Amino acid sequence: EIFEMAKALFQPQDLSGKSLVITAGPTQEAIDPVRYLSNHSSGKMGFALAQAASERGATVTLIAGPVNLATPAGVNRVDVVSASQMYEAALNSIAGCDVFIGTAAVADYRPSSAADQKIKKDGSGAERTITLIENPDILASIGHHENRPATVIGFAAETQKTEQYAADKLQRKNADAIVANDVSRSDIGFGAANNEVLWVSDQQSVPFGPASKRDVAHFILDQILNLGN
Amino acid sequence: EIFEMAKALFQPQDLSGKSLVITAGPTQEAIDPVRYLSNHSSGKMGFALAQAASERGATVTLIAGPVNLATPAGVNRVDVVSASQMYEAALNSIAGCDVFIGTAAVADYRPSSAADQKIKKDGSGAERTITLIENPDILASIGHHENRPATVIGFAAETQKTEQYAADKLQRKNADAIVANDVSRSDIGFGAANNEVLWVSDQQSVPFGPASKRDVAHFILDQILNLGN
Repeated sequence: EIFEMAKALFQPQDLSGKSLVITAGPTQEAIDPVRYLSNHSSGKMGFALAQAASERGATVTLIAGPVNLATPAGVNRVDVVSASQMYEAALNSIAGCDVFIGTAAVADYRPSSAADQKIKKDGSGAERTITLIENPDILASIGHHENRPATVIGFAAETQKTEQYAADKLQRKNADAIVANDVSRSDIGFGAANNEVLWVSDQQSVPFGPASKRDVAHFILDQILNLGN
Repeated sequence: EIFEMAKALFQPQDLSGKSLVITAGPTQEAIDPVRYLSNHSSGKMGFALAQAASERGATVTLIAGPVNLATPAGVNRVDVVSASQMYEAALNSIAGCDVFIGTAAVADYRPSSAADQKIKKDGSGAERTITLIENPDILASIGHHENRPATVIGFAAETQKTEQYAADKLQRKNADAIVANDVSRSDIGFGAANNEVLWVSDQQSVPFGPASKRDVAHFILDQILNLGN
């Protein structure tokens, strides 16, 4: 703990003057007032990135889905619940933003309509269906935005074909890099303290870890500073 | 805090020799390795009941869905994730059980099949559907079980017609009482520290609260001890 604090004090201020926007955590998509769709993202990676960037002198806005994590010191936090709310908060934040990092596990789909009252079981034993519609794509919207930040980084949480999906995602979203990880592995996946990632840019693929999410965060920030060199 | 500890020390041991099984929290129903269906139950009411019953001398088994709560002192906790797992744990626990209290917000439905790999967005913008099948009904299974505990209590988290739904549920589940609350009210609903309930048995409907979940728990245990008097 004291060692971590000492490391924080001696971070180079190499992000001083930079404005970062980071999304983190899952989103929740309402089915009715009681039920929702969500995913197992803990938000730890995004919070670690926000803390690391703040320690290195950046101005950080952290747009967080429903997570159970303390706000890192000096970070401006915006809490949201649904993907639509996160989309709106992200788009509202890109004016003046130098680096956008989308770590959030944004729900790809939401129920086409949320019921006003709790849906009752009819007791018939019959199957039901939920109709889902696509949520807005935050990373692609920012990657292709007319006010696109200079640097746009996405995450890809995959359970297979990690590098291939990351390379595809890099092109489709017009991102500068995708940070891919394999969430099927319990030692490094959602909720774990450690992470092992693959940094995929046009120029190179760089593996890192397994390492603490704090060290992975600093690795990612180092890679961002190296972009275009 | 000290006042609460003192109250705990001086609880009457009026549940001494009784074995209680309490379910608590939400369940999570997997869509794929990353995504799930769940609900906003915090588990606080069930944990408060487990603590109160233990303080009053009962042997308590607490079957908990995924919640972020500490186990009350002296309580035997069984962690589960899905409704099917909770059903199995509950049925396995009823031998020798005197009182079953189902506070958990068990998912009524689960995806008919959970995908082995993360489902990819196809980018077509087309709607998708999730097919849902009914989960086993834990409360009804225990209410109608050949080894039914002497006392079976259910909860009803409703957003409308609270008393009517509770009375219906009492009959269908063969329960001794249903504790109903209106989760549409943010002051007493899921996650709130306080609760306001309606105890609905064949004999009477008794409102209680708003009060702390601890006081609601002791009210419910008092009502259980009064059953059949």
